[in-house]
Amino acid sequence: MGLWDVDKIEYVGRQGVKEGLGFRYYDKNKVVAGKPMKDWLRFAVAWWHTFNQGLVDPFGDPTAQRPYYRYTDPMDQALAKVDYAFELFTKLGVDFFCFHDRDLAPEGDTLRESDANLDKVVDRIEAAMKDTGVKLLWNTSSLFTNPRFEAGAGTSPFADIYAYSAGQLKHSLEIGKRLGAENYVFWGGREGYESLWNTRMKEEQDHMAALFHMCVDYAKEIGFDAQFLIEPKPKEPTLHQYDYDAATTINFLRTYDLQDNFKLNIEGNHANLAMHTYQHEVRVARETGFLGSLDANQGDKLIGWDMDEFPSDLYDATAVMWEVLANGSIGPRGGLNFDAKPRRSSFLPEDLFRTHIVGMDTYAAGLLVAAKMHEDGYIEQLQQDRYASFESGIGSTVKDGTATLASLEEYSLDKPQAELIAADKSDHLEVVKATINNYIVEALAQA
Amino acid sequence: MGLWDVDKIEYVGRQGVKEGLGFRYYDKNKVVAGKPMKDWLRFAVAWWHTFNQGLVDPFGDPTAQRPYYRYTDPMDQALAKVDYAFELFTKLGVDFFCFHDRDLAPEGDTLRESDANLDKVVDRIEAAMKDTGVKLLWNTSSLFTNPRFEAGAGTSPFADIYAYSAGQLKHSLEIGKRLGAENYVFWGGREGYESLWNTRMKEEQDHMAALFHMCVDYAKEIGFDAQFLIEPKPKEPTLHQYDYDAATTINFLRTYDLQDNFKLNIEGNHANLAMHTYQHEVRVARETGFLGSLDANQGDKLIGWDMDEFPSDLYDATAVMWEVLANGSIGPRGGLNFDAKPRRSSFLPEDLFRTHIVGMDTYAAGLLVAAKMHEDGYIEQLQQDRYASFESGIGSTVKDGTATLASLEEYSLDKPQAELIAADKSDHLEVVKATINNYIVEALAQA
Amino acid sequence: MGLWDVDKIEYVGRQGVKEGLGFRYYDKNKVVAGKPMKDWLRFAVAWWHTFNQGLVDPFGDPTAQRPYYRYTDPMDQALAKVDYAFELFTKLGVDFFCFHDRDLAPEGDTLRESDANLDKVVDRIEAAMKDTGVKLLWNTSSLFTNPRFEAGAGTSPFADIYAYSAGQLKHSLEIGKRLGAENYVFWGGREGYESLWNTRMKEEQDHMAALFHMCVDYAKEIGFDAQFLIEPKPKEPTLHQYDYDAATTINFLRTYDLQDNFKLNIEGNHANLAMHTYQHEVRVARETGFLGSLDANQGDKLIGWDMDEFPSDLYDATAVMWEVLANGSIGPRGGLNFDAKPRRSSFLPEDLFRTHIVGMDTYAAGLLVAAKMHEDGYIEQLQQDRYASFESGIGSTVKDGTATLASLEEYSLDKPQAELIAADKSDHLEVVKATINNYIVEALAQA
Amino acid sequence: MGLWDVDKIEYVGRQGVKEGLGFRYYDKNKVVAGKPMKDWLRFAVAWWHTFNQGLVDPFGDPTAQRPYYRYTDPMDQALAKVDYAFELFTKLGVDFFCFHDRDLAPEGDTLRESDANLDKVVDRIEAAMKDTGVKLLWNTSSLFTNPRFEAGAGTSPFADIYAYSAGQLKHSLEIGKRLGAENYVFWGGREGYESLWNTRMKEEQDHMAALFHMCVDYAKEIGFDAQFLIEPKPKEPTLHQYDYDAATTINFLRTYDLQDNFKLNIEGNHANLAMHTYQHEVRVARETGFLGSLDANQGDKLIGWDMDEFPSDLYDATAVMWEVLANGSIGPRGGLNFDAKPRRSSFLPEDLFRTHIVGMDTYAAGLLVAAKMHEDGYIEQLQQDRYASFESGIGSTVKDGTATLASLEEYSLDKPQAELIAADKSDHLEVVKATINNYIVEALAQA
Repeated sequence: MGLWDVDKIEYVGRQGVKEGLGFRYYDKNKVVAGKPMKDWLRFAVAWWHTFNQGLVDPFGDPTAQRPYYRYTDPMDQALAKVDYAFELFTKLGVDFFCFHDRDLAPEGDTLRESDANLDKVVDRIEAAMKDTGVKLLWNTSSLFTNPRFEAGAGTSPFADIYAYSAGQLKHSLEIGKRLGAENYVFWGGREGYESLWNTRMKEEQDHMAALFHMCVDYAKEIGFDAQFLIEPKPKEPTLHQYDYDAATTINFLRTYDLQDNFKLNIEGNHANLAMHTYQHEVRVARETGFLGSLDANQGDKLIGWDMDEFPSDLYDATAVMWEVLANGSIGPRGGLNFDAKPRRSSFLPEDLFRTHIVGMDTYAAGLLVAAKMHEDGYIEQLQQDRYASFESGIGSTVKDGTATLASLEEYSLDKPQAELIAADKSDHLEVVKATINNYIVEALAQA
Repeated sequence: MGLWDVDKIEYVGRQGVKEGLGFRYYDKNKVVAGKPMKDWLRFAVAWWHTFNQGLVDPFGDPTAQRPYYRYTDPMDQALAKVDYAFELFTKLGVDFFCFHDRDLAPEGDTLRESDANLDKVVDRIEAAMKDTGVKLLWNTSSLFTNPRFEAGAGTSPFADIYAYSAGQLKHSLEIGKRLGAENYVFWGGREGYESLWNTRMKEEQDHMAALFHMCVDYAKEIGFDAQFLIEPKPKEPTLHQYDYDAATTINFLRTYDLQDNFKLNIEGNHANLAMHTYQHEVRVARETGFLGSLDANQGDKLIGWDMDEFPSDLYDATAVMWEVLANGSIGPRGGLNFDAKPRRSSFLPEDLFRTHIVGMDTYAAGLLVAAKMHEDGYIEQLQQDRYASFESGIGSTVKDGTATLASLEEYSLDKPQAELIAADKSDHLEVVKATINNYIVEALAQA
Repeated sequence: MGLWDVDKIEYVGRQGVKEGLGFRYYDKNKVVAGKPMKDWLRFAVAWWHTFNQGLVDPFGDPTAQRPYYRYTDPMDQALAKVDYAFELFTKLGVDFFCFHDRDLAPEGDTLRESDANLDKVVDRIEAAMKDTGVKLLWNTSSLFTNPRFEAGAGTSPFADIYAYSAGQLKHSLEIGKRLGAENYVFWGGREGYESLWNTRMKEEQDHMAALFHMCVDYAKEIGFDAQFLIEPKPKEPTLHQYDYDAATTINFLRTYDLQDNFKLNIEGNHANLAMHTYQHEVRVARETGFLGSLDANQGDKLIGWDMDEFPSDLYDATAVMWEVLANGSIGPRGGLNFDAKPRRSSFLPEDLFRTHIVGMDTYAAGLLVAAKMHEDGYIEQLQQDRYASFESGIGSTVKDGTATLASLEEYSLDKPQAELIAADKSDHLEVVKATINNYIVEALAQA
Repeated sequence: MGLWDVDKIEYVGRQGVKEGLGFRYYDKNKVVAGKPMKDWLRFAVAWWHTFNQGLVDPFGDPTAQRPYYRYTDPMDQALAKVDYAFELFTKLGVDFFCFHDRDLAPEGDTLRESDANLDKVVDRIEAAMKDTGVKLLWNTSSLFTNPRFEAGAGTSPFADIYAYSAGQLKHSLEIGKRLGAENYVFWGGREGYESLWNTRMKEEQDHMAALFHMCVDYAKEIGFDAQFLIEPKPKEPTLHQYDYDAATTINFLRTYDLQDNFKLNIEGNHANLAMHTYQHEVRVARETGFLGSLDANQGDKLIGWDMDEFPSDLYDATAVMWEVLANGSIGPRGGLNFDAKPRRSSFLPEDLFRTHIVGMDTYAAGLLVAAKMHEDGYIEQLQQDRYASFESGIGSTVKDGTATLASLEEYSLDKPQAELIAADKSDHLEVVKATINNYIVEALAQA
């Protein structure tokens, strides 16, 4: 059965799943809303959580049981993992993967040595991509784990650390180019502050923006045409992270004239940590043209740290896929990356398959429900009715730019309260929520 | 003793306060950091909380005891309150006040009738301002209380409500002009959503921006040169408010080309509801040139609703005043408005004085502490040391724009880990916090 | 069509609902898990939210449109509401209702006058109950709205307020007896503190417990045998409420030897404000024998105040009904009270019907899903497997009380790590969550 | 200068501190409120954070620089650390320390081997205690780090893990006895659940209680008379922890008849994670007789994970020490343990001294301020006035148990509203907060 003691995962329908090892909803080539499921969803496996994450927590040592732990030499293990990875991709039927540079290979003492280690693993990956047809959704640089980044990378107050980060990024862009990455992600895992008292916030952001401009220039120089993405996240690992949420990050991009070169990679659990819903963050990005890609995971809204759970919530998946359908796609070259790890108690090798299946099925279900809602034009009609008064009369003068305070005052000055109150329409949102429940049952019962 | 049974409040120093009716730190004309205290602080009384707030809460009827409750006719009471208000301003030695239009006078059945009611009270206010020299820090429009605004004002999906809002704003701008308001505030107390399912977020924000542009145009037309301000607030009264926090609001302004016409009015309790510190929000606004004015109050960081408590926290006051001193002033024409109400158990008329005194003394204390910190250059030096590596060598190539990924890689490629680690400097933030404690004791013990 | 312009609400099945005015799942007499749905659910309408709530919020005046607003005299309106109420109960097919004393009638200047007003309305209610067969799930006293309770009722530091509260409670117990209330609820809406500095927490709780003992004694004296309930709630309206959550409240009951006389009324939104799930609070109460009744509503876990939304979340409803089925009933005499109000934008009279239908259908759906899960013994089996090692061998010595530290050390001293690790079983919770999704679709598709 | 390149830390007063290496307030033998500071505070160093914590975070490798890292053999390093530890205790002038068993020595493959490793280090510690006079405030067992505890220790569903935990506890109690520990702490770092679906909450708590009873019995058997303590903590590392907060834990103790054998160890940051203030948790424990000991640290109330920062907040320290003074001591044998680690950017060896100094000075300052408040009877008087109405008249019938609902109704029935309202007294809490600010300045300016 190959390296993993698991058969290829097949679509078996709602009743056929045995031991969590089959798809209920994800039928890769089934056409939904005009495209095969796989093209709407473009699932990706995250190298770090899937292959490197030992399932630690703040008070717990690793529980994960992995077959390649028998390789004790770090480079041997790194190379072996490539084989395990591509077999897992293939058996799951996932077409994309994502990685940080430091997920792949151990660091050396210098950047040059680290680059060399990395290149050896990238060679093996390049071959495996060719063999399997699996593609790179995005790569990125780990500029947060090594202690040298204790005070940031692109926002470090220490110029040598900043310079090193730039060097590391350069090589990551080259690897992205070489492997044909669809996107390149920047995650500001250390870019923030622990205290405002010792921080020059604006100067740090100036530095960060300068670094982003250098990356844009260098990508152009080497002909790397991936979509650049920033991934918002607040409140971890330092007190404040600059890429707090979608709106904050877009504000940064506009401030530094980077809005044409960057879009956003939106993550569900990060949305919640910023006290937003996942749908909110996706909507903000979508309506402003900044939706680039998705990190699909979930946390618990009552918990204040990043759980990175595999997504199973049908409400979130429906809402997010509704936005994706409204957008025509996840993003220009986006996909749905599982930035998710098994719970610490799901420590078996085959749990890696089970948990990805849950995530894939959840989003496939979300797609089916959202597609049915769009097919019926349910939400579209509801909104059209609600905003109808702006399509004609006084409302249209707002849209066509002819309204002024004076013209609107003139229109309103003698309207009695009862007439104004009558302009408000009840929207009984409670019924809307019950209707969405019904869509979930209807769409999935037919799957 | 006048309308209020309270003597004029005097500066009596730390030991002289009797029954909460004297200033410990606020010595109006005392020069601190080159300006009289009053010019740094520019305190304002908020009409709504001070004169209209009955001290209700979600489960509680009003507890406030106010002498003007003996006037039972709404217009009589509205006019009487003007006299009470200006006597309170004068006895407290507060030079500014703020109001929403609907704080001043009852609504009529039509906008025209409401305007007429309002004008009668404004006449009395204009006279009282002349008599006392007290000035209007800002006025604003209440576009959130009346049920007609149930789905928003500038973002209402109902064009008649939008039009009415514009008419109401027009008259508010005229009143601001007439009374010489230093600023004009927009608070989006209803501009947000209860559910994304029935909401076109972008269309609503387009409408809002159009309305702001009409206001800019009309102010220009009538020669009203107040600074326009937006006041961020999240999570109340609807699920999401568009002016979530400073960064989100600045993003809105940049998106709609309003950044030259608007600044921000930052409130402490609103900052906390957005999961930020007050200092954070002030810093974001200050460093980007958007600091306009301050609403000084506090809540409890463990509570998820707006408490609007009078400020007593010395840490917050010190941090905010440190930013203000770094900025040269609160804002071009800003002040410090107490958007605060007495606790429900502080229901006596004279508690209105006591609570303002606490707020004023807290910020006066913050000013004294922050001034001492700036005088010593404590924070400035600490930051200068920390960022020094960007002043020369490789760091300066980032600043002068000559750095590229290639030049920085070249610089870093063979640096060993130990050398990189040595570039990081310990900042022992714990000692910084203890030092600030010391500044509080030192500066206030000398007051 | 009677007082409300709405037909009787019928069960029409999943496809037949028109304009939100029919039941999809709630088929009153359908037998599920051995009992008619109505007997599992025992729905109740909350007088305060349904008839008195104007749909205000902290910044908004009432939006509700109600036919009985045409009665302008408070007693006339109070009496008219009784007719509207019982017609609504009947048309919805709800068998129970709940009220606070002050929901029913306006207060007079003295307790005696208030009692008299109340008694007139109770006369009318008594007659309507007889006519319709609708029963009183519980009544309670409002000891929080009137300003006299600003510092608490049973925990007020002011003895006159405490005494008044006792008098008010006495009459409420008499009304409960007269109307045959199944339960009597105590909600500590003012019992807590705003600051620990001016609070003697233990003394206040001593007073509260004394009052509860007086209530137990008086109920015995008059032969009122309702189940007494406390309803936990944290963080509103004062900084801390003593009945914070289920565990805290049970601790209070045990401390003051009240555990045999009181159970808990658990509310979903209150659970979330205490940072717990609804299921958690119900589980804590159920497993310790304190589950008395349910207040079904929901909020938003990212919002820090009490939204009192009608429940629509199928996950919550499934989890809560799973616990109820495991318990055999909601509680000895419990029911499911909708402590919920329409959103402020659902202001029409018929929205009162729509929103109750959503709530009833949600819990009927939860019952159907949970019943299917119990029928299959899905969770029971999963737990039995997980805890199996305590059924025999060393585990059984823990259960039978023969284990000691020494016997367990002896057993463990030479077990190698690999053997210990092998004792842990993966529970792949992700698959459990996906299976629950499947139960939702299966059970509801068959409804 | 010994093993650490730092001189003995001396009290130098407010002006004399150089580079953070001297005490501003902590003057060990200075008598405050009748006892030397050291006897009020009984400071302890936490072995895990101080000697073992590499200053990692979820995305960051260790930054800590420690002289004993040159010992690469784990047992060599473990033994060397004893020397470093006792020199640090002595130089700081700290009289107590605390540890988990696994802090001291590496685990072997079996419990027997682990015990043997541990005993070697305990030998060295015993000698060092004798030499220096430093005492053990408490020890505990790490039943949460090793992967075997992935599903709990005393609440593990796997009997072998439970048995192992008991064996580990047995040896820890023996070590406590041998070293004369003043207290023994149980921290339920894994006792909770990740999902209620696979959890039998009551059964798990039954097991836990059985284990606690075995510990009580065994301590009695070996004559170990330390005070047993439980340390509440919520929300980490699993979704729910059973020892959520003080009230929840006391409820557990009462339920299982353990209330006479256990008290609580209250931690500041844990209080905040449970959405309480530190003062609240201490007050709950104090007034019910469960205050055992303190873990002094702080987090950030806007952050949802455990920061374990050294305490620097004067408000918290004042409030906690006020409670301690009211209690007569921290607890029967309690102390103040710094469950705190330097920030990740305070990575130098001497930062271990600086951060402890900040913590010690903060609590010494809190003691000075609180002592001044008690000396003046400020809070006592304020409370006495507020509750005075229960000392005579109708209030005293509540206290003496003669009040009934009927007697209190009789007293209240004809009291008009105005008289009731007059019974409420304004407490103007704002002035109370300002007065506490004043106490901070007064007390510390005289230090």
